[in-house]
Amino acid sequence: MFNAKKETKKIVQFIRDYYKKNNLGGVVLGISGGKDSGVVAALFTEALGKENVLGVTMPCHSKEDDKNLAKVVADYYGFELINVDLTNTFDTFKSEIDLLGNYDDSVLKNSDINLKPRFRMSTLYYLAAMYSAIRGKTYIVGGTSNKSELYVGYFTKGGDSVHDISVLADLTVEEVIAVGKELKVPKEVLYRVPSDGLSNQSDEDKLGVKYSDIAKYMEDKESVDVETRKKIKKLHDNNQHKFVIPTYRKNY
Amino acid sequence: MFNAKKETKKIVQFIRDYYKKNNLGGVVLGISGGKDSGVVAALFTEALGKENVLGVTMPCHSKEDDKNLAKVVADYYGFELINVDLTNTFDTFKSEIDLLGNYDDSVLKNSDINLKPRFRMSTLYYLAAMYSAIRGKTYIVGGTSNKSELYVGYFTKGGDSVHDISVLADLTVEEVIAVGKELKVPKEVLYRVPSDGLSNQSDEDKLGVKYSDIAKYMEDKESVDVETRKKIKKLHDNNQHKFVIPTYRKNY
Repeated sequence: MFNAKKETKKIVQFIRDYYKKNNLGGVVLGISGGKDSGVVAALFTEALGKENVLGVTMPCHSKEDDKNLAKVVADYYGFELINVDLTNTFDTFKSEIDLLGNYDDSVLKNSDINLKPRFRMSTLYYLAAMYSAIRGKTYIVGGTSNKSELYVGYFTKGGDSVHDISVLADLTVEEVIAVGKELKVPKEVLYRVPSDGLSNQSDEDKLGVKYSDIAKYMEDKESVDVETRKKIKKLHDNNQHKFVIPTYRKNY
Repeated sequence: MFNAKKETKKIVQFIRDYYKKNNLGGVVLGISGGKDSGVVAALFTEALGKENVLGVTMPCHSKEDDKNLAKVVADYYGFELINVDLTNTFDTFKSEIDLLGNYDDSVLKNSDINLKPRFRMSTLYYLAAMYSAIRGKTYIVGGTSNKSELYVGYFTKGGDSVHDISVLADLTVEEVIAVGKELKVPKEVLYRVPSDGLSNQSDEDKLGVKYSDIAKYMEDKESVDVETRKKIKKLHDNNQHKFVIPTYRKNY
């Protein structure tokens, strides 16, 4: 059984130990207004103190709602929240792409969806180095990927999967929520329907499977129906290339 | 002894095998005008045919020289070379950062240097998905990191280290050059003094050690002087965090 209280304490200790060992100062976190970044922000605030947590909203043709919910989290835990609007950067990049030819939006859809998390990752690292220089303490980038998303490869390579410390990667969606409850993450954030904020679809719509089924499957493959089993296995297998880069070795 | 002829053939076979097994079509390569991307372009052209290689120059406040040398490589091997200028995108991003406060350029230096490879990675992935959709065959992103750079962590996390296939990662700088000779990479490219094209310093200046010493050290630590040994060990140790993200596990 997952003991949320105990697990929360251990994660906080893990963060403190890592910061102490490596002489680190602060964390930069992208705050989306969803549960994962809400729980991660709560954990880092508990571990490091609010003065060492820097939250960042990075709207990019996205809903105002995301920013409002990010502010709910920052206000509740009392950490600093800054905004870097990526809409103009995205549009400038797109205008360079336009020079390559006159292509229909449909062929750019996948490119556009995944560009945003890559620009967001770039922004978080930009800010981490910048505030490290300004404030004289080392900031690193905190990750929000959870075990369920990682299992089915639901992340952007070179985007949200790039970070310096990972605290939810061994927790299923359900366990993340349990930790969030323990840390009193505001309900409208903790129970928000997860979506990438990019494609106007919920995560579960895009994946075609429910997170609760992924959790069951990871525990015991036989516990979900055959159809679901196939879908999850396929997602898992097709995304393995995101974890280990195929590399030529001399003994090939 | 490193047998360049044999090794070149094996790398070409590795690429072909991987493409066949995964039903892939083409490769997108950032072409910097330096030896690594020159050798990688030569290898992929040999493996897949020039019609399946898409080279990309991505100037970003950089020297015209880079673009000219990239064209030398593309012309020599006959593959398509496109240009996506990132200068305006970079400047637009910087103007958003300016809104955060009036900070001296010196505190932004590290941020700026590493932003470029991250934007370049984002661009290569953008193009890979875009041309996959346009041309109806799957493009992936080829990497250019070599064993010496990887050993001392001389790359940008979330930048040039993110790619889908890696062909030089087990070859020292000297071995990369030997493969390049075998494939007749134009001399002005193969023997160009390596630099990141970003910071106006050569790679060896920035690292404070010579690539030839890194190669010797990797073979036999005792073969270089004590001072150099210390420097290389420090670079290696300090950059390990770039390879494996520290992650909380429930058994912590």
